[in-house]
Amino acid sequence: MRILILGGGGFIGLKLAKALAERGTLRGDTITHLCLADVTGTEAIDAPFPVTAESLDIANRDAVDTLMGKGWDAIFHLAAVVSGQAEADFVSGLRANFFGTLNLFESARANGRKPVIVYSSSVAAYGGEVPQPIEDWTNTNPQTSYGSQKVIGELLLNDYSRRGFFDGRGVRLPTVVVRPGKPNAAASSFFSSIIREPLQGEPAMCPVDPEATKGWLTSPRAVVENLLRSAEIDAETLGQNRCFNLPGITVTVAEMIEALGRKGGKEALDLIDYEINTAVEKIVSGWAVDFKPAKALALGMQADTDFDSIVQQFIDDELA
Amino acid sequence: MRILILGGGGFIGLKLAKALAERGTLRGDTITHLCLADVTGTEAIDAPFPVTAESLDIANRDAVDTLMGKGWDAIFHLAAVVSGQAEADFVSGLRANFFGTLNLFESARANGRKPVIVYSSSVAAYGGEVPQPIEDWTNTNPQTSYGSQKVIGELLLNDYSRRGFFDGRGVRLPTVVVRPGKPNAAASSFFSSIIREPLQGEPAMCPVDPEATKGWLTSPRAVVENLLRSAEIDAETLGQNRCFNLPGITVTVAEMIEALGRKGGKEALDLIDYEINTAVEKIVSGWAVDFKPAKALALGMQADTDFDSIVQQFIDDELA
Repeated sequence: MRILILGGGGFIGLKLAKALAERGTLRGDTITHLCLADVTGTEAIDAPFPVTAESLDIANRDAVDTLMGKGWDAIFHLAAVVSGQAEADFVSGLRANFFGTLNLFESARANGRKPVIVYSSSVAAYGGEVPQPIEDWTNTNPQTSYGSQKVIGELLLNDYSRRGFFDGRGVRLPTVVVRPGKPNAAASSFFSSIIREPLQGEPAMCPVDPEATKGWLTSPRAVVENLLRSAEIDAETLGQNRCFNLPGITVTVAEMIEALGRKGGKEALDLIDYEINTAVEKIVSGWAVDFKPAKALALGMQADTDFDSIVQQFIDDELA
Repeated sequence: MRILILGGGGFIGLKLAKALAERGTLRGDTITHLCLADVTGTEAIDAPFPVTAESLDIANRDAVDTLMGKGWDAIFHLAAVVSGQAEADFVSGLRANFFGTLNLFESARANGRKPVIVYSSSVAAYGGEVPQPIEDWTNTNPQTSYGSQKVIGELLLNDYSRRGFFDGRGVRLPTVVVRPGKPNAAASSFFSSIIREPLQGEPAMCPVDPEATKGWLTSPRAVVENLLRSAEIDAETLGQNRCFNLPGITVTVAEMIEALGRKGGKEALDLIDYEINTAVEKIVSGWAVDFKPAKALALGMQADTDFDSIVQQFIDDELA
């Protein structure tokens, strides 16, 4: 079992790599090689199998073909230019998210090895003229370039899988909190910052109205578990739409901050400043937050229980 | 008002061109030039303004750029490799439908003239895991490569319009009957053949179970009227999803044949042979046939009244 993670240098990619190293198997087969490919560098991983790192510009078809030529049985495609950046710089999002995904799928079609491909789509697929709650059959009517590019990848994945070019599975990730490290260009970055920074004694900025703003959230552990499960399940169980919403929990920013207070006390709460950023608020308010992920639950995908446990997970996994 | 029709040599493109010639105006402006571009030749059109023909391979970006450089205020994008062909020959569909549409939109983005672009999508956008009736917010879960490529065009159109690169409008056409001329590679071709051929004394083949097979149908006149109306309406009325279902009527193949009998008598009915084609039946049975096109009706789009009038329209417009 040779595994490739695209976006293997990112936060979720690295956690997924570590989980694979702990398991040692995927789809019943012993993992013999793991490659972490990213546009930037990747961390070293301790594993019972060889782990290599590749520098990859996914928008470069030749580079993708060369990497694909090394032969992979399972590919996790997590590489993306994030929402805020894809909105601010249309061309960079088009390159990485649209052409990058197209390159991977076209390369797989040409290559003929027919790997399992797990594709990370996003809650940003939703928005616009749709009723809530979001059901599995609600239209994807994205209101950002990032969301549009992600849904285009879903359509390609479904069609390429239906035609047997590869065995794709697409999962729409809720916003993942609490991310470790630094803020990034995602419009959703503040969802993590307002928890992460105060718990480390640093100031954070809340750019939205806490009472009026809700998030559809998942923890890193749940996402990694669900990505692995997405690779494991039988193709036949996926039906006629291989892309589905992962489970999450709906929480207001105010409720998130209350949970922070229960874990970090008044000193944590005092580190949050409030100033509306209309660009962020516009993007985030366009995202759906009320979901009924029936298909994912039927497929055995895992949800978090509450936001307090998500904060505790961050404390245990990142601050301990 | 300079107008370009991509797919201007096709059946709907030519009818649209003739309708523009009769009107002489679009969006309140006098038409000064009409260009019919197609991969094949186009018919000559009598018009009160110059009409030119261009041979265009829409999958060739340089050729698209050259044509776009001539400057167009309104573009009707009807060019496509049809459903049956795109299913039988994946690469030809990907070239024309995916890359062709991408080329047009990318060329418009680079060009900067910001035309109105009316894009013909299709009922083939629907299928898979969705409940019927199809509402405006029902997910597009296409089960053919043609449908997938059409929906990808919709997503690009919405995003490019939202960003102000052009002013797009996407309409999902029901199956258009009765088409004049010869059968084509569309899986829906028989919907026209079983009416057209018998009314001209020629044999026709019905490749599906007439009682079990339904179509979501529109007449050529209604489609042309709705394409024109789609160009005319104000962008503000289009909301957050510029792609919507045109009105149609739901008819079983058996009901279509009954209408043929009322217009053409027993001699027409006797010209139909019945032999199931499983490839056609599989594609057609995957299409949705029960729609609630509320948005289109609110925008003033026109529907046919019944299938008898569609047969009569064919007799009046094509056989008279």
